[in-house]
Amino acid sequence: MDNTTWIAIISIILAGITTGFGTMGPALAEGKAVATALTSIAQQPDASPTITRTLFVGLAMIESTAIYCFVVSMILIFANPFWNYAIEQVAGK
Amino acid sequence: MDNTTWIAIISIILAGITTGFGTMGPALAEGKAVATALTSIAQQPDASPTITRTLFVGLAMIESTAIYCFVVSMILIFANPFWNYAIEQVAGK
Amino acid sequence: MDNTTWIAIISIILAGITTGFGTMGPALAEGKAVATALTSIAQQPDASPTITRTLFVGLAMIESTAIYCFVVSMILIFANPFWNYAIEQVAGK
Amino acid sequence: MDNTTWIAIISIILAGITTGFGTMGPALAEGKAVATALTSIAQQPDASPTITRTLFVGLAMIESTAIYCFVVSMILIFANPFWNYAIEQVAGK
Amino acid sequence: MDNTTWIAIISIILAGITTGFGTMGPALAEGKAVATALTSIAQQPDASPTITRTLFVGLAMIESTAIYCFVVSMILIFANPFWNYAIEQVAGK
Amino acid sequence: MDNTTWIAIISIILAGITTGFGTMGPALAEGKAVATALTSIAQQPDASPTITRTLFVGLAMIESTAIYCFVVSMILIFANPFWNYAIEQVAGK
Amino acid sequence: MDNTTWIAIISIILAGITTGFGTMGPALAEGKAVATALTSIAQQPDASPTITRTLFVGLAMIESTAIYCFVVSMILIFANPFWNYAIEQVAGK
Amino acid sequence: MDNTTWIAIISIILAGITTGFGTMGPALAEGKAVATALTSIAQQPDASPTITRTLFVGLAMIESTAIYCFVVSMILIFANPFWNYAIEQVAGK
Amino acid sequence: MDNTTWIAIISIILAGITTGFGTMGPALAEGKAVATALTSIAQQPDASPTITRTLFVGLAMIESTAIYCFVVSMILIFANPFWNYAIEQVAGK
Amino acid sequence: MDNTTWIAIISIILAGITTGFGTMGPALAEGKAVATALTSIAQQPDASPTITRTLFVGLAMIESTAIYCFVVSMILIFANPFWNYAIEQVAGK
Amino acid sequence: MDNTTWIAIISIILAGITTGFGTMGPALAEGKAVATALTSIAQQPDASPTITRTLFVGLAMIESTAIYCFVVSMILIFANPFWNYAIEQVAGK
Amino acid sequence: MDNTTWIAIISIILAGITTGFGTMGPALAEGKAVATALTSIAQQPDASPTITRTLFVGLAMIESTAIYCFVVSMILIFANPFWNYAIEQVAGK
Amino acid sequence: MDNTTWIAIISIILAGITTGFGTMGPALAEGKAVATALTSIAQQPDASPTITRTLFVGLAMIESTAIYCFVVSMILIFANPFWNYAIEQVAGK
Amino acid sequence: MDNTTWIAIISIILAGITTGFGTMGPALAEGKAVATALTSIAQQPDASPTITRTLFVGLAMIESTAIYCFVVSMILIFANPFWNYAIEQVAGK
Repeated sequence: MDNTTWIAIISIILAGITTGFGTMGPALAEGKAVATALTSIAQQPDASPTITRTLFVGLAMIESTAIYCFVVSMILIFANPFWNYAIEQVAGK
Repeated sequence: MDNTTWIAIISIILAGITTGFGTMGPALAEGKAVATALTSIAQQPDASPTITRTLFVGLAMIESTAIYCFVVSMILIFANPFWNYAIEQVAGK
Repeated sequence: MDNTTWIAIISIILAGITTGFGTMGPALAEGKAVATALTSIAQQPDASPTITRTLFVGLAMIESTAIYCFVVSMILIFANPFWNYAIEQVAGK
Repeated sequence: MDNTTWIAIISIILAGITTGFGTMGPALAEGKAVATALTSIAQQPDASPTITRTLFVGLAMIESTAIYCFVVSMILIFANPFWNYAIEQVAGK
Repeated sequence: MDNTTWIAIISIILAGITTGFGTMGPALAEGKAVATALTSIAQQPDASPTITRTLFVGLAMIESTAIYCFVVSMILIFANPFWNYAIEQVAGK
Repeated sequence: MDNTTWIAIISIILAGITTGFGTMGPALAEGKAVATALTSIAQQPDASPTITRTLFVGLAMIESTAIYCFVVSMILIFANPFWNYAIEQVAGK
Repeated sequence: MDNTTWIAIISIILAGITTGFGTMGPALAEGKAVATALTSIAQQPDASPTITRTLFVGLAMIESTAIYCFVVSMILIFANPFWNYAIEQVAGK
Repeated sequence: MDNTTWIAIISIILAGITTGFGTMGPALAEGKAVATALTSIAQQPDASPTITRTLFVGLAMIESTAIYCFVVSMILIFANPFWNYAIEQVAGK
Repeated sequence: MDNTTWIAIISIILAGITTGFGTMGPALAEGKAVATALTSIAQQPDASPTITRTLFVGLAMIESTAIYCFVVSMILIFANPFWNYAIEQVAGK
Repeated sequence: MDNTTWIAIISIILAGITTGFGTMGPALAEGKAVATALTSIAQQPDASPTITRTLFVGLAMIESTAIYCFVVSMILIFANPFWNYAIEQVAGK
Repeated sequence: MDNTTWIAIISIILAGITTGFGTMGPALAEGKAVATALTSIAQQPDASPTITRTLFVGLAMIESTAIYCFVVSMILIFANPFWNYAIEQVAGK
Repeated sequence: MDNTTWIAIISIILAGITTGFGTMGPALAEGKAVATALTSIAQQPDASPTITRTLFVGLAMIESTAIYCFVVSMILIFANPFWNYAIEQVAGK
Repeated sequence: MDNTTWIAIISIILAGITTGFGTMGPALAEGKAVATALTSIAQQPDASPTITRTLFVGLAMIESTAIYCFVVSMILIFANPFWNYAIEQVAGK
Repeated sequence: MDNTTWIAIISIILAGITTGFGTMGPALAEGKAVATALTSIAQQPDASPTITRTLFVGLAMIESTAIYCFVVSMILIFANPFWNYAIEQVAGK
């Protein structure tokens, strides 16, 4: 394989792994947070506005870590500086 | 193997792994959230509208991480920039 | 091995793995959801219509992640663009 | 080894793994669901018709993921398009 | 090694693994189900006919996943299409 | 190594692994079932005939999965069709 | 290495592994069963004859899986058909 | 491969892994913290200002570890001193 | 290495592993059984003769699995038929 | 690859791993500490000044272990004595 | 390496591993037994003679499995029949 | 690679791993200790001086194990005797 | 590498691993025993002499397994019979 | 690489691993012991002198296992007999 191919392959691999595994943690954490929210509402229905507000802030914070992963995947597929450098090298050769 | 084949293989592998493993976390998280919702409804039937509404928002949020994985798989199979580059190279040769 | 064979092998491997492992999470999650539903019905028989309705929505949502995996497997076996490209290359050679 | 043998081997491997591991999740999930059903019946004998009905719907849903795995195994052994292609190639050579 | 030997070896390996590991899940699930049944009978002796009936239906369902694994092993040892093809090739050569 | 040796080795390996690991699940499951039976008898001595009867049916069902593994091991050691084929090939050569 | 040595080595390895790992499950299961028996006797001293009788039946059943493993080890060391075949081949050569 | 390519590949791999795995811990920790906050609010609604304030300080502290990972990934992709050195070496050659 | 050395090495390895790992399960199981016995005596001092008697039968049964492992190790070091065969071959050569 | 490249690669790898994995422990520990603080405040609102003060001292102590990891990463990227030695060797050559 | 060296190396490795890992199980089991003894004494100070006597019998039984491992290590270092055979071969050569 | 490079690489690797993994245990242990301190203060506010004093002694003790790891890393990077020996060898050559 | 070096390397590796991993079990077991002792003293201050005496006997017993590991490490570094044999061979050559 | 380098590398690796991993167990055990001490003080403030005294004896005992690991690391870096032998061999050559 030539250099360009290697970089392409590695970019594909990491794009998949980063999203595939990196979303596991946030998903489980969100599941836990949502589950607790439901228990709390059932236990104290009067506090449900405070609970849902805190829940949404928390979910946004957790979702942000999933988005870091998705962003890295997208950068690796569509805005990869190493790939750009490599195809310039090939073009300029 | 030539370069095109390598990229095809790697794309197939990651497409499968990203979806196959990446949906594990969301599935478990959704199972947990649904299970808690049912417990909560049984415990406090009067709050069931609030609970189901919060549940559906939460499920949508968790499902979003599964969809990130599915999107990455579909991009790798049907809109893969590295693959497009490779078959252009072959065609132009 | 030639290129076509490699792509065939990898497609078979991932088709099996994606379904074989990807259905583990949903199965466990559904088992958890069903189990909780039964507990909840036993605890609050009057709420059983709400519980079973919420359960079926939840199961459908969880099943959807199992179906993503099955879809990817079927695409890899029967509608694989990389395989189609490869056998066209062989045919056109 | 020649190409046909490789495809045969890989198909055997995946057929075994997909069924062997893929049935683990459903089996455990069904065990959990059945166990909870028995607890629930013991706790609330009057609700046993609702419980067993919900149980059987749930078991069918969980069993469906085991069947996806078995279906993929059977396709790989008896209706494998890659294998058919390979033995046609050998026959036509 | 020649091709026939490879296929024989792989078939033996998978036959063992599929049964050896694939029966682990069902065994544990059945252990759990039986254990819960005993607890339930001790807790509510009057419901024992319903409990044992539900238990046997559940055990049959769980046993079915163990049987899928055993069936795949037996197919791989005694009715393996890839092996039949291979020894025909050898015989016809 | 020649082909016969390979098949012998693989058969030995799988015979050991299938029994060695495949009996782990049933053993643990039986331990759990027996343990629960003892707890149940201590809790409800009057129901001990029903409990022991259900226990023995359950143990037999669980033992069956251990026996599947033992059967596969014995087939691989003493009635292995691949080994028979191989030594016929050697004898007929 | 020649073929005989390979078979000897593999037999030694599997003999050790089958016993070394295969007794882990039964040991833990027996520990659990004994522990529960002691708890049950402490809780309900009057039922101790029934408990110890059920315990011994259960221990025998669990011990049987450990004995399957030990039997396979002994067969591999002292009554190994593949080894017998191999040294006959050497002797007859 | 030449040296530049190796450095590019390794940078891509670590950028993906650092973010993909490094966000798992913070995500789970945040999920736990949010979940406990909700439980606490439900249990003691009067203390909710103190709780949410402490929660946000804690989330910021935990998020900081996720950001360390993201920063290292970005440094490796866009401000990598080893990469800069390598392409200078290539340019100056 | 020659054949004798290989057999010696493998025998040493398995002797160590079989004892080293195979005693883990029994040790833990005995720890559990002893611990429960102590709890039970503390809870019901009057039943201590029955408890210690049942405990010693159980410990003997568990110890037996550790002894199987030790026996296999000793056979592999001091009464190994494969080693005897090998040094006879060397001596007779 | 030449020596400089090897050192660069290894430095990148360890920089990523040290931060990516080393922040997992602190993140989880902080999540646990924060969660307990919230529970404690809810349980004893009067002690909240003492609790938050102890919490912040504890978080600082835990964060210090995350910072050790980040410091090692930064040393490896920007103040690596081995790298400096290597590029001096290259420059002086 | 020559044969003697190989046997020396393997003996060192296994001596270390057998003791290093094989003492893990007994240590944990003894920790558990001691811990329960302390709890039981605190709960029922009058039964402390029976408890400590049963504890010491149990500890001796558990320690025996650790000693099996230590014995195997010492045999491998100081009374290894394979090593003795090997240095005799060298001396006699 | 020459010898100097090998030593440099290994030193970098171990410096990273020792700190990256070695701080995991202390971090979790400190998290646990802090969490329990907070629970204890909430439960018994009057004992808070004794609790915080014991906590700080304990944290210092735990932190010491993290510092052992950091010290080993720093020795490996900045005061490595093997590295000093190696560059002396190179300089003296 | 020559034989002496191999034996040196292996001895270093095992010395480190045996102590590094072999002290993990005892450390955790002692932590558990100490923790239970503290709980027991808090629960029954009058029994503290009996408890601390039993604790110290137990700790000594557990520490003995850690010392087995340390002894094996020291034997491997400073009184290694294989190393002595090897350097005698070199000296006598 | 020559022999000296190999010994240096292995010593570095084991020095790092022994400290990095070997301090994990003690750290966790100390965390557990400290945590229980705090709970016990909160539960029984009058017994705090006895508790802290027992705690410090226990911590010293646990810390001793961490120090065994640190001692082995320091011996491997600064007083390694194999390294001394190797550089003497080089010097004397």
